[in-house]
Amino acid sequence: MTHSIARAAVRKPFPPSLLEALKAAFDERVSVAEAVRAHHGRDESMFDPQWPDAVVYARTTQEVAAIVALCAQYEVPVIPYGNGSSLEGHLLAVQGGVTIDLSEMNRVLSIDAHDLTATVQAGVSRKALNDALRDTGLFFPIDPGADASIGGMAATRASGTNAVRYGTMRENVLGLTVVRADARIIHTGSRARKSSAGYDLTRVFVGSEGTLGVITEVTVRLYPLPEAISAAMCAFPSMGDAVRTVIETIQLGVPVARVEFVDALAIRAINRHSNLTLPQTQTLFFEFHGSETGVREQAQTVQDIAAQHGGQGFAWATRPEERSRLWNARHSAYFAMLQLRPGCRALTTDVCVPISRLAECIEQTEADLKQSSLLCPIVGHVGDGNFHVAMLIDPASPAEIQEAEQLNQRLVSRALRFGGTCTGEHGVGLHKMDFLVDEHGADAVDTMRAIKHALDPHNLMNPGKIFAFHGPH
Amino acid sequence: MTHSIARAAVRKPFPPSLLEALKAAFDERVSVAEAVRAHHGRDESMFDPQWPDAVVYARTTQEVAAIVALCAQYEVPVIPYGNGSSLEGHLLAVQGGVTIDLSEMNRVLSIDAHDLTATVQAGVSRKALNDALRDTGLFFPIDPGADASIGGMAATRASGTNAVRYGTMRENVLGLTVVRADARIIHTGSRARKSSAGYDLTRVFVGSEGTLGVITEVTVRLYPLPEAISAAMCAFPSMGDAVRTVIETIQLGVPVARVEFVDALAIRAINRHSNLTLPQTQTLFFEFHGSETGVREQAQTVQDIAAQHGGQGFAWATRPEERSRLWNARHSAYFAMLQLRPGCRALTTDVCVPISRLAECIEQTEADLKQSSLLCPIVGHVGDGNFHVAMLIDPASPAEIQEAEQLNQRLVSRALRFGGTCTGEHGVGLHKMDFLVDEHGADAVDTMRAIKHALDPHNLMNPGKIFAFHGPH
Repeated sequence: MTHSIARAAVRKPFPPSLLEALKAAFDERVSVAEAVRAHHGRDESMFDPQWPDAVVYARTTQEVAAIVALCAQYEVPVIPYGNGSSLEGHLLAVQGGVTIDLSEMNRVLSIDAHDLTATVQAGVSRKALNDALRDTGLFFPIDPGADASIGGMAATRASGTNAVRYGTMRENVLGLTVVRADARIIHTGSRARKSSAGYDLTRVFVGSEGTLGVITEVTVRLYPLPEAISAAMCAFPSMGDAVRTVIETIQLGVPVARVEFVDALAIRAINRHSNLTLPQTQTLFFEFHGSETGVREQAQTVQDIAAQHGGQGFAWATRPEERSRLWNARHSAYFAMLQLRPGCRALTTDVCVPISRLAECIEQTEADLKQSSLLCPIVGHVGDGNFHVAMLIDPASPAEIQEAEQLNQRLVSRALRFGGTCTGEHGVGLHKMDFLVDEHGADAVDTMRAIKHALDPHNLMNPGKIFAFHGPH
Repeated sequence: MTHSIARAAVRKPFPPSLLEALKAAFDERVSVAEAVRAHHGRDESMFDPQWPDAVVYARTTQEVAAIVALCAQYEVPVIPYGNGSSLEGHLLAVQGGVTIDLSEMNRVLSIDAHDLTATVQAGVSRKALNDALRDTGLFFPIDPGADASIGGMAATRASGTNAVRYGTMRENVLGLTVVRADARIIHTGSRARKSSAGYDLTRVFVGSEGTLGVITEVTVRLYPLPEAISAAMCAFPSMGDAVRTVIETIQLGVPVARVEFVDALAIRAINRHSNLTLPQTQTLFFEFHGSETGVREQAQTVQDIAAQHGGQGFAWATRPEERSRLWNARHSAYFAMLQLRPGCRALTTDVCVPISRLAECIEQTEADLKQSSLLCPIVGHVGDGNFHVAMLIDPASPAEIQEAEQLNQRLVSRALRFGGTCTGEHGVGLHKMDFLVDEHGADAVDTMRAIKHALDPHNLMNPGKIFAFHGPH
């Protein structure tokens, strides 16, 4: 698994005087312990770990700037680390260097209920932010499967189940504090809802995967909790029927808050993991937000569409506890799927296609997967045209890895043919560098590389990710 | 009026052999006629015209690339020109060069009703796109006052009256075709609704005001026409009362499609210009989109809020013709206001603040304007926290210009103190370069400049706009 890693530069020896300088400044918050480095040299991807030379736990933007300044002085790579839940190898120290662990940057700095914004340190997790919002009547909707850090979610342009209604991190980050490669601290955006004041630096850094600087603070949009919420599941005879229900729902402009596809195999995994007894078939999970009558109207429209596609009745989760149980089950799908095959790891695909091509894409994929020997459950944020195949493989089996990679190659090619993207929400990391060129073309990727070179001329910010970089090194 | 222009570089002589080469390639679509150059050397700002040396009318992306390649060869500036409706001097040829007129790039390339997207050439105007959508049941919501080109709207990150519900060009551009400074053609984004595939080049170019390349094609999001639409006006005793109605509406999460503030003076202008008899007082214009019951619910909620702030009844425009009349009147406000003082020009402010500070900001501004001798009507997209003061001045009077600039300086400082932005939707152009630094800080603006330098090392793409640029020239 690893043409991508193979082409990364060779590690340089770690300068002892840098370690001394870090220890002088950060004391016991610097670690070179094997267990700590091992923990920080991996993520949820299938890649073998690549350890950093040292890990430093930062607590403030100024501390991050001090670490970056020291690393710049010694020309040592810097890797920002949130909650470790990346899926594409983003966190691996392929060229060694210093990992900055931001988990102690866990303060919610301000909640402005009147302006529907909050500013958090990068290490605050999405659940921690929502806990902090509990008494405000507001919520933060972006919810990748893991309880990721808000900084990490900004860095990978994450989304999740609510994106169909509320957008992704692209739409919901209003501003950032970033430590640049030269250790300068910049503030992007503002708390105003819109601005035409110069280049959109916020969105230059959102999705840059740590390669342009370290995101240390994030200002996000919040939303009023809807007056009414209702959730339901509906079983379908086939994937195509389920997906066509979604396509018509979106094309009609029904403002569904969530619409998630879970295939029969993933339902089996969820049942086992969350001790549920859902019918083992192709299923859509819905959630509707709005006024009481608005929610009723949306639900009726979607039920009518589902009925036309063989949807077998709606099972409603009306009480908050039932809803939580439903969505916790959905959110645990990734870990539930891993347990279908003990000891396995997952190569998780992430294509996203224009909604009109989703049925074709998912049906062709289903047919392709049927030829495979691998267990491959499918879940998807289908309202966005985004779905994930979790290919469960034995990480010690080169044959299985190769088979999974080939399935993924064909899937990405299919998605690109349909006008889609190789990654809807996970990012490029180490794994999708070649796909990035297939998707955007060499000249567009060169344009990205020019921006990288302008902001990080010595290629020290999470080097080796997103694209091969031919800098001065 | 002009420290900004004064600091731009001196014009270089225009190379006769470049003109010959352009004429060889474009024949009668190259013009050096005075009238043509004069027309293209100005916009709707107060700045004195600065003529380009030549104007070329392009019809395709490839033609734009050919013009850019020739200009690059001779190191001559390039200025993209859509419909000429910029407000901050974006189009002025402060260093001479070639203006590429994109008005003949007026083809709607594709409408994908199933995916709710359209791809247009950059010269297509917002009204032309909506005309093309007429029989599809879809619409494109972004509506700056002028019938701007979609390319120009992307370049300035424009918005308008619908942004409170549908977002701005930032949220509604899915992808771009761009000719870079070195004449390479790149495609950004995709037709998928979301993507984490590399840097967000789409949003690097949206709002870049022609300084990073020429936008030649734009893929935008479309929306289903709502099942029900209703519009209304409501008069208020004071600006503060009107604005507080808006603040509560937004904070409650009511999904208003439009909520526009028009002050008494602007109403007088609109009445004269559009031959209406609206009550001459502080007024909010509303529009509600949704299902029949949804629209009724929204309208009721907002009427309740308005009543608590002295709103004097809602005058409903229920029939489509009445609604069109209302919104045409609102859209003509800018030209209507200019007619309040024949021969004047307007210095139009554009601050945007967090919604919680809008009442303070607008009331302090009102007090400041009362001290002024200038006619200063106010209109605003207040649901976004954005409002415009049109300061009507005699362009031949340095004293009036100075007074307007001072009022604007104080207004921008006020907005920045409140956490807002110097420009919500008009852009920086020539006029707000100093404010940009005040807003973002020197290091953030340096970051923008680094991107500019990376993508346009010879500073040939609309030079002298957004920031002073110390490139190799």
